[in-house]
Amino acid sequence: MKLKIKIVGVGLIGTSLGLALARKGTVASLSDHSKANLRLATEYGAGIESTDEPDLVIVCVPPDSTAKLVCEQLALHKNAVVTDVASVKVAIASEVKSLAGPESSRYVGSHPMAGRETGGPRGARADLFFAMPWVVTPSDTTLDSQLELVTDLALQLDALPVVMSAQEHDQSAALVSHLPQLVASALAARLASGSTADLNLAGQGLRDTTRIAASDPDMWLQILSQNAGAIGPLLTEFGKDINSLVESLQNADKSVALAAIQSVLVNGNQGVSAIPGKHGGKYLEYKTVTALIDDSPGALATLLTFVGEIGVNLEDIKLEHSPGAPIGLVEMQILPAVHEKLMGQLVENGWRLA
Amino acid sequence: MKLKIKIVGVGLIGTSLGLALARKGTVASLSDHSKANLRLATEYGAGIESTDEPDLVIVCVPPDSTAKLVCEQLALHKNAVVTDVASVKVAIASEVKSLAGPESSRYVGSHPMAGRETGGPRGARADLFFAMPWVVTPSDTTLDSQLELVTDLALQLDALPVVMSAQEHDQSAALVSHLPQLVASALAARLASGSTADLNLAGQGLRDTTRIAASDPDMWLQILSQNAGAIGPLLTEFGKDINSLVESLQNADKSVALAAIQSVLVNGNQGVSAIPGKHGGKYLEYKTVTALIDDSPGALATLLTFVGEIGVNLEDIKLEHSPGAPIGLVEMQILPAVHEKLMGQLVENGWRLA
Repeated sequence: MKLKIKIVGVGLIGTSLGLALARKGTVASLSDHSKANLRLATEYGAGIESTDEPDLVIVCVPPDSTAKLVCEQLALHKNAVVTDVASVKVAIASEVKSLAGPESSRYVGSHPMAGRETGGPRGARADLFFAMPWVVTPSDTTLDSQLELVTDLALQLDALPVVMSAQEHDQSAALVSHLPQLVASALAARLASGSTADLNLAGQGLRDTTRIAASDPDMWLQILSQNAGAIGPLLTEFGKDINSLVESLQNADKSVALAAIQSVLVNGNQGVSAIPGKHGGKYLEYKTVTALIDDSPGALATLLTFVGEIGVNLEDIKLEHSPGAPIGLVEMQILPAVHEKLMGQLVENGWRLA
Repeated sequence: MKLKIKIVGVGLIGTSLGLALARKGTVASLSDHSKANLRLATEYGAGIESTDEPDLVIVCVPPDSTAKLVCEQLALHKNAVVTDVASVKVAIASEVKSLAGPESSRYVGSHPMAGRETGGPRGARADLFFAMPWVVTPSDTTLDSQLELVTDLALQLDALPVVMSAQEHDQSAALVSHLPQLVASALAARLASGSTADLNLAGQGLRDTTRIAASDPDMWLQILSQNAGAIGPLLTEFGKDINSLVESLQNADKSVALAAIQSVLVNGNQGVSAIPGKHGGKYLEYKTVTALIDDSPGALATLLTFVGEIGVNLEDIKLEHSPGAPIGLVEMQILPAVHEKLMGQLVENGWRLA
């Protein structure tokens, strides 16, 4: 028997959930206070408007509204398990408990670690959750059957369910998501002191380190303030690191500054290497073959037709192309098993490799 | 009459310069203390070994060795202008002046704002400098003809020459390059306090904000220590911002914390929007069309063959592909003028758009 799923709030995450479910053959029931968003989401094929009683309700609204809407859905659908997708979990679980009382036992928090800078239903993607962690945060009273309803949803959408407590989630998220957001915003805020001449020299490094500082301040204010308790100590430690680096730089003994900078750089190297590769480490196992093509319509297609004809499947591809330049570089990511074959065949057939 | 150019040091930048010059019909003379690198660079077509007297020498070695090698080249080639590509300019200019005396008048500092995380000749690319700023830092005694030799080189390689003083360069670079490096490294260093469970939740935001923290510590130690004077005050200000945010978070009045967080987020938004677009803003003018393809060898080629056949040239392409998933998303960047044509033709011919 197929599960009946209701999605409340068809922004980026809600619409993407609907599209992902549709791909797996489940037509979700959609609800949103914005008629325009609702129309768009149904037109996209993310689900339908329906009055069917759901088995599982997924509340996909901003953090500050999540607890209230979870409680509304608990009251509306007396037999349903209700989950959410908000980036903070402790504050919401506690608000749901205090608002809904015993009914709150049917609430199981969750947080798919997926998103895009482009918000709203227009940014939605059916594969948004593919191979991404999906944290599920049961309470002490959550039944196994209720927990399974949410972890099965994650599995069905090809996400990786990770069960932890709401406290553990908020601690982890503070380190890997909320602290980086505040640091990136504070760094980008420093650019206000820069002149146009300064900013004209900006390279890819500045763009990457500050990209997430372009995120929606309203949404992030909700996330950060709901998790201020976990973020505070981490930001304090980060601030101490910066302060001691500043002090070392001011030391008259130049070797003190050198040692301090070197320690930060080396520790930074180690920190980056501790981040698992994309898709659970798989990403790092790909091999890259870079071929040169000329800048004409169809040149890339000719290359890829050739690659397809020799039976090589591309895991990822990136075109490094300078507008107006006579050539482009095609970076092809492939499984190690076909690396030599692809290289050999390309060279043999006159393709230029970089 | 063609300019004779000598490149000293065939790492990433030196080899890329040679390749870029070769594409424009200039065969550079190459020199490197590593015979292996030199062989690789000549095999790549970045230039040849030659004893011809150069008109312009480009020293492409790490910052700490730059001044010494500039002086060697000034002594070796009495009629040549000597430039370099190091990321810091004041310290090098001053060392060259003190080491080379009056000969130093033939030194004109420069810094192409281009690079990759992949170092060495193997990472070299002929289009590395395309549309990137190339700072040229003449001294008070630099002749117009000497300055032109370097700005013409930048123009010839399709870079954007920007003339400023060495002091101005080091100030600007401190803000848009050196401060972000230290902040990214310090942020990544914080990950040492994280558990595997924490890091398993890492998303794209953490990866982007810390990407440059994976850079070579030796190279960056040289850059940062040579420009510590300009970086110190900026890092001090950044540290103050973080400290005041920490204080606000500790304030018993919750509205104080909210106001502080909001201010950082909003100022961060403004900072990001102050960064000019890639390729002098051109990048932002592209339109994106996203098509769905199934995950089989040749599927992408079939799409791109079609795109080529209707005469549309892709400016950039990105494959969002989840290994093992039945479909992939192809993000195609195109000029606005062909946007409707491409959309229309794809839909008319049965392609699915996202």
